[in-house]
Amino acid sequence: MHGAGGNTGADDARWLAAAARLAARGRPLSRPNPAVGCLIVRDGIVVGRGWTQPGGRPHAEAAALAQAGDAARGATVYVTLEPCAHRAGRGPACSDLLAEAQPARVVIGQRDPDERTRGRGMERLSAAGIAVATLGCPASRASLAGYLTRAERGRPHVTLKLATSLDGAIATAGGESRWITGAAARAHVHSRRAMADAILVGGGTWRADAPGLDVRLPGLEARSPRRLILSRSIEAPGIEVLPAPQAIAGLDAVNYLYVEGGAQTAAAFLAADLVDRIELYRAPIVIGGGAGAIGDIGLASLAAAHGRWHLAERRQLGSDTFEAYRRQGQDQPQDGN
Amino acid sequence: MHGAGGNTGADDARWLAAAARLAARGRPLSRPNPAVGCLIVRDGIVVGRGWTQPGGRPHAEAAALAQAGDAARGATVYVTLEPCAHRAGRGPACSDLLAEAQPARVVIGQRDPDERTRGRGMERLSAAGIAVATLGCPASRASLAGYLTRAERGRPHVTLKLATSLDGAIATAGGESRWITGAAARAHVHSRRAMADAILVGGGTWRADAPGLDVRLPGLEARSPRRLILSRSIEAPGIEVLPAPQAIAGLDAVNYLYVEGGAQTAAAFLAADLVDRIELYRAPIVIGGGAGAIGDIGLASLAAAHGRWHLAERRQLGSDTFEAYRRQGQDQPQDGN
Repeated sequence: MHGAGGNTGADDARWLAAAARLAARGRPLSRPNPAVGCLIVRDGIVVGRGWTQPGGRPHAEAAALAQAGDAARGATVYVTLEPCAHRAGRGPACSDLLAEAQPARVVIGQRDPDERTRGRGMERLSAAGIAVATLGCPASRASLAGYLTRAERGRPHVTLKLATSLDGAIATAGGESRWITGAAARAHVHSRRAMADAILVGGGTWRADAPGLDVRLPGLEARSPRRLILSRSIEAPGIEVLPAPQAIAGLDAVNYLYVEGGAQTAAAFLAADLVDRIELYRAPIVIGGGAGAIGDIGLASLAAAHGRWHLAERRQLGSDTFEAYRRQGQDQPQDGN
Repeated sequence: MHGAGGNTGADDARWLAAAARLAARGRPLSRPNPAVGCLIVRDGIVVGRGWTQPGGRPHAEAAALAQAGDAARGATVYVTLEPCAHRAGRGPACSDLLAEAQPARVVIGQRDPDERTRGRGMERLSAAGIAVATLGCPASRASLAGYLTRAERGRPHVTLKLATSLDGAIATAGGESRWITGAAARAHVHSRRAMADAILVGGGTWRADAPGLDVRLPGLEARSPRRLILSRSIEAPGIEVLPAPQAIAGLDAVNYLYVEGGAQTAAAFLAADLVDRIELYRAPIVIGGGAGAIGDIGLASLAAAHGRWHLAERRQLGSDTFEAYRRQGQDQPQDGN
């Protein structure tokens, strides 16, 4: 096969994982489109790369093809999501662009659950004489967690953030919560906010912390996401109020939701089984008799609590520890950070 | 210097650390004596090793010298604690044994705070023409944590054990606590009990868990330590009852105390500033609204909570995480596991 990149399974998996890392650059500004990554490889050399641009266009494949030019002919294209097949007013379908560019092979990390594309993107490539392979690529799936959760569960991907002492308190008994974690952990929280489409807090936390729900990192101030409140009573001008966790299903253009508490809001989302990832910051301090991080979730027994969460990531942030726990389950978009 | 082992500072530190690992074999059965380790090194080869035997005799140096025989002459002796100088009915003083054996050098990891020996063991060696060096050896100090805490603070070294969910609960709201952690973590707890001189629980935990406060590891059943209860009301035949945490100062032959809760007992020890090490087992489960691990410790403000604990160790035990936190402070016997 003239000019194709590495085409063993292991090579394919590595190139797709690299494409997934590119995809992360698109998040969250690609909304309402998923953040897709694309690499075009010829004789083991990258001749084009792209990721979904702010607002969703150009798509990753269009950006990578524009970069590769004629070098795309006979090359291998790695793309985290099946190339789109639906011709819209906003731009050409990527499967048409690829058919025209005539790579030898297209390797896809994840089929598109969107009915307008599902299978059709691949058919159009095959019809153009291009070899098509679909790999079950965990990195691709993880990079598309918001999009896939929306498609498969009809709601955004939800990350619950907690910041606690060693003994699981988010505040002293008197309500003091500033600060439990240190500067590095707090900066990390801001970087996570910048990756979300929306932040949600409960009414109590809103009343206490509202001015703080933004991104205070140099150069990323404009990335402060939409702010939502979970409340049945609050009315705040310019702020969206959701009466129940289930209402997140109706949020437009929100694929990644970052829930920052407090304890009752955390409990409400957990009790509704609407949390995909828990991000836990823990400081090496003892509070003792403090306010617990999570309210009553209606747990029937300890046995029911086991097997639901899996440690996906751990790192030190100064003297604090960051841990991410992933919801268990075969059908779950993995990692979903 | 004929036949001496390595005598650079780095070599000395390494041999002392090895002696400290030997010392760990003596714990806790050496009581009422501290668990000491001794290595005799000649031309870089270990010719004798010993650690304090059950009941405290023979001492580590005596055991190592018996093994080395004539090879001790001109060798270097590494010992974690200053050799004893007091001649007792139970056996000869180690400084006398060493003076007779005539090693070229004795390297000591930690001076003995015991008035009967302090400085005198070293003097006796010097008087016998033996070179003596004292290194500030953290490994020696850690291996002697119980003994040094007793000498420096007039009480046993105290480890507080906690087993919690992600959200810091030790039981459900309904009181269910079996099991939060898995089999590997529970076996680890039993191995820690086997290293203690005594276990202490509060009255509530005693009523709930008393039959379980033993070592259930194959071959170590006989190592179940003394059992203590913190209570003002319980009377249990054959069980020692302490009315307050401060009463641990009066415990005979207890250098390592292992406190297993519950929350009020943990709080009482923390509030009295009587905890040297926290050993935390965390399961990847969410309980929500459960019973907190530590009751009110009278914390005045969050600022007062910071800087008191330092992560000393972390490991996975199945899906659970084990973490040891060491009390901060220059004068603290380090690690003290």
